[in-house]
Parts: sequence; C-alpha cells; structure tokens
Amino acid sequence: MPEIRIDPITEERVIVATERSRRPHDFKKPDAPPAPAPEFVPTCPFCVGNESMTPPEVDAFREAGTAPDAPGWWVRTVPNKFPALAPDSHTDPSTEGVYTRTGGYGVHEVIIETPRHNETPVVASAQQWREVIRMYQRRLQTLAQNGRLRTALIFRNEGRTAGASLEHPHSQLVGLPFVPPVLQRYIEGVARYQSRHGRHPMEAILEQELREGMRVVNQSARFVVYAPFAARAPYELAIAPTTPALQLATMEPDALTEFADVLRDALRRLDAALGNPPHNYMLFTAPFGGDGAFWEYVRIAPRLSIDAGFELGTGVGINITAPEDAARYLREAFTASG
Amino acid sequence: MPEIRIDPITEERVIVATERSRRPHDFKKPDAPPAPAPEFVPTCPFCVGNESMTPPEVDAFREAGTAPDAPGWWVRTVPNKFPALAPDSHTDPSTEGVYTRTGGYGVHEVIIETPRHNETPVVASAQQWREVIRMYQRRLQTLAQNGRLRTALIFRNEGRTAGASLEHPHSQLVGLPFVPPVLQRYIEGVARYQSRHGRHPMEAILEQELREGMRVVNQSARFVVYAPFAARAPYELAIAPTTPALQLATMEPDALTEFADVLRDALRRLDAALGNPPHNYMLFTAPFGGDGAFWEYVRIAPRLSIDAGFELGTGVGINITAPEDAARYLREAFTASG
Repeated sequence: MPEIRIDPITEERVIVATERSRRPHDFKKPDAPPAPAPEFVPTCPFCVGNESMTPPEVDAFREAGTAPDAPGWWVRTVPNKFPALAPDSHTDPSTEGVYTRTGGYGVHEVIIETPRHNETPVVASAQQWREVIRMYQRRLQTLAQNGRLRTALIFRNEGRTAGASLEHPHSQLVGLPFVPPVLQRYIEGVARYQSRHGRHPMEAILEQELREGMRVVNQSARFVVYAPFAARAPYELAIAPTTPALQLATMEPDALTEFADVLRDALRRLDAALGNPPHNYMLFTAPFGGDGAFWEYVRIAPRLSIDAGFELGTGVGINITAPEDAARYLREAFTASG
Repeated sequence: MPEIRIDPITEERVIVATERSRRPHDFKKPDAPPAPAPEFVPTCPFCVGNESMTPPEVDAFREAGTAPDAPGWWVRTVPNKFPALAPDSHTDPSTEGVYTRTGGYGVHEVIIETPRHNETPVVASAQQWREVIRMYQRRLQTLAQNGRLRTALIFRNEGRTAGASLEHPHSQLVGLPFVPPVLQRYIEGVARYQSRHGRHPMEAILEQELREGMRVVNQSARFVVYAPFAARAPYELAIAPTTPALQLATMEPDALTEFADVLRDALRRLDAALGNPPHNYMLFTAPFGGDGAFWEYVRIAPRLSIDAGFELGTGVGINITAPEDAARYLREAFTASG
C-alpha cells in the first residue's frame, strides 16, 4: 500500500510505494560495464597538458614553480566556458508590462578534480579527494568576498543522464545574486519548525536518525550519512554535520578531511551497490553574510527514475524504494560487493 | 549574455541563455526515425482485444450493445495497475517523533486514448482526439464527486525519456486528497499578484501576449497557445482560455471541441518542428469545491534538456532557447516541415 511521507522541514509530500520497492540489482544495467576510460584523452579540455583549451584558471593547487595554465596542478579551477550566469552581466531589473527580467549576473566555475581523465571520485585516493574538497572550501571563501553574490551552490553531475556533458571528473560552483527557491524553502521551513517547536529541525532529525538507526548509512565523529525519511527518489542520501557550527567555508582542516572522507565513502557505497549510477550531488551551504545559524547539508540524488507528468505537475516525488531499504543496502554495500 | 526572467505569478526565476539558443534541427535526433509501430501488439494491455490484461474498466465510450471489458470501445478508462496512490488506502496521519506519514489514498486512472497501438495524438483524427478530451472532462466530473479528493491532475507522458513506460497512446489522471506544491504556488502567486495589482495575472499576461504577439504560437476564439515569458525549458508551451469561466469540468461541447483542437494543434506543431520530442503535458484544473475563480491552464513540457545539479539544487531552470524563438519556429512549423 503506498504511503505519503511529509518532509519535516519543507512539509512537501513524497509518495513511497514500498510494494514496488526494488533491490539494487534491479536498477543495475544488464549490459557489460563500459570500457574503462584512458588516463589521458587528447581532445579533453580538462586533461593535463590541455590547459589552453579552457579559459585561464582562477585557482589551482599546483607544484611550486609551475606556471598557471600549465601542467603541475592536481586540482584546477577555471571559469565555465559556457556559463549559465556571467560575471560581465548585471542585476538591474527592466520591466515591460507584466514581465520583469534582469541581467544574468553570476559566477560559474568548473573545479577539475584531477589531471587524470579516469580518476573518478570512487577510484581517487582519499588524499586526492580531500584536495578537491579543500578547493571547494577555498572557492567558497573567495566567492563569499564578492559583495554582489548572496549564495553559492557547489554541485556535481555524474553520468550523461544526470546532465554531465564532459566525462573528465569535475565539479561546478555557481555564485548567485539571489537566494534560489530550493534554498528559500529550506530556510522558511527551518524558521517555521523553530517557531513551533523551539529547536532546529535538523537537530531533531539527526537525534531521531541516530536513535532509530534504520536510515543511517554511515557516521563519523562530526557527520551523519542517512537516507532521508521523505527522500524523493530511490537511494537518495543526505550528509549533515551534527552541529550548524560546522560550515564548509570556515571548517577546520580536521573536519574538512572528515567531510571529504564521508562524502567519498557515500559515493563509493552507491558505486558498490548500484554500479556508479548517474547522480547529482548538491552542497547546500550557508548564504553569504548570514547570521551563521544556517545548518548545512549535502543531498546526493541518484537518477534511477525519471520525473514524468505527475512529478512535474504536482511537485510530489514517487519513490519506489523505501529509504529504510536503501539505507540497509548501502550499509551492506561493501560486504555485498565483496 | 544570459538573462534572468521572473515568472509573474510564481516569481520564480529562469535563466535564459539566448546565445546558446538552438534551432529545432539541433534538437532532432540524427538517427533514422524509429520503425512505425503496428496497429496491434499482442502483448500490449491497452490494445483492443486485450481488455482482460487491465483491471476492469471504470468508463468507456463504446458502441451500443458492447459489454464492458470487451472490444467496441474507442476511448477506455481503467484503474492504473501500478497506482501511485490507491483508493483502498486512507488519509489518517501517524507521527513518530519528527516524522509524519499518511496512507497513500488517491485515485490513479489510465485513459486509453484509442484501440489502435499506433494512433498517437499527432496522427489521430480531430474527431478521435475530441473524444479523448471529452473523456478527460467526464472523469474529472466523476472525481469531483469524490468528497475525499481536493484536486486532480490529468497528464500525459510521451516517450521513454519523459517517463512513458507503455507505448500505446494513453493519458493519466490522479486524484489527490491535498493541494500539491506546484498548484499551491500558482494559487499563492495569483493571490499575491491580485492583491498588488487588482487584477488576475493571467488576464494581464494574455492581454500582453496578444498585443505583442511574439510568443503566441496559435489562438482560437477562446484559447491562446503561447511560449511563456519565463519558460523553464526549450519549447515549453502554455495553453490558456481567455477567461477563467472556461473550466474543463463545466465546459460546453463547443468550447471542449475547440480546446481539443488547439491542444492537438500544439502537439502537431512540436512534432513537425522537433520530430515528436519526448514531452509531458499537465492540465492544471480547478481544485474541487473551490470558489470558481481558478484560471485553468495547460503546460506542455518537451524534455529536450536534462535537469542537472544546478536545477535540482536551486529550482532555477536554464532555458537555452529563447521563448520568442521557440514560438516563431512553432508558428512556422507546418510550413517549415512542408
């Protein structure tokens, strides 16, 4: 029998149709795995040696004595060549009758995670992946200094059906001059819950998750990885720090390392259980210049089902895998895959 | 230079990146078109003669003297065999700590549009398609009598990448015991606009669209087909009546025929311009038991691009085809395709 679950923060509903619940192998593609990608692809703009194929870098971790836009880097950040928003645009509104538009001001960067074309997060060393997350932090700190931006979103697309247009491992960062609707609904939901219950909903959620355990996939001293009670799609995960004081832009190196490790672990579990499914992840970090009370979290969204007319027309997700089942499979992922 | 457009009703933002604007042929698949489907498929539960493969029908237009669940029908409605929501469930909430769930009560029907497997809306006769829309109306009237439902959504998925799991032409209807978020945001946006401007935003929108003309694709005496100013994706269309008094459940036969014809025309234009692209459409009809002031509309959403981490994480669409360009191509669709 399907049930409706209500997100405790946004209050949005999700239909969980557990009798249609699928085990991980039902989602795995039956075909042979794709041929392994080579370490270097001559036409790839993100491969080492091809630095001239991207716009000039804005940041990099590179060996002492090497020049910008030359080899010697291990993580490299460049402006997106096809930006969704552009720093040479503006934010002035213009109105014609009922319609208002503004310039598409913003910052859109690509964080190239590795010089090696085939070094995906699940095969990268823990050390390499920590450097990627250290770059996330550094770019976020830099964008926070831009007085015209109000928020930034760091995200990653894996697989063509999740919107990745280039295979070489990379993340993206967009700085926005406004608070986008998804973040706004989270902020409003938190305020609504706090005014009713006198505490932050994430505190209540994590307390219950750790007590019940059935939706917890992994935890470290400072972070919890869990399948949200009202997950909108199969195998969706959240990663949250146990305190709002832990924010990416200001995290100490120890905590940053721990965050990198639990994120990498979650991606490796999805890979072990589901064969590197197409997915996106999004880092919901604190708006710039806020009061510091924002509780950050990561949403990892595997793209195992397609939103159709029902989901587009209602905004209600249909999740055919109970989050409790997803969490169990992902807890057991490494043992199951041998 | 990208620009940000603000939806006058929901106030949500869309990025229109016009310099990446694509002409229709850029979206068309380079491969040869798929082989035409046969008129009858022995394993298809929706083909005539296979009526026993579906749950018993709840409604049908059929020849006098033919029995339910037997041939003789031209449009047939059955309960969805794999319902997202089920009429034998309940709506009672139960709470455990921070989480609340309810039974998945609802109605989920499939409207089989034709006995013939290959009679898609773009090849169906105008007369056949009018009968489909007449069935939409009749099912909506029936569900409105169900005191436990607050809204219904009629939608259609075309193509696997738009979520269609069966090829045989069909629409779906879901009756919900609540007002879903997408509809709620529309209702709230309308109220906000009305309190600020003293008129319904749809009145202002249609007035401006008809005056400017550049986003209008087609119009009839009672309906306007246009590419919305803040369309979230390429070639998205809206169909709206020129007055809120025209609602699907109470529409007179003349208006219903006209609505069927403009909807069919819009689908045929998308087919001519883009080669029957995968798409969804959704009918945003008035909530049940409302005050009658709801201005209905249809959203047609071709699935030519993939929502990735940016769209999932912000709720902001990136549209690479300016709505003005999409409207022009679709106005010229029939002449262009010969």
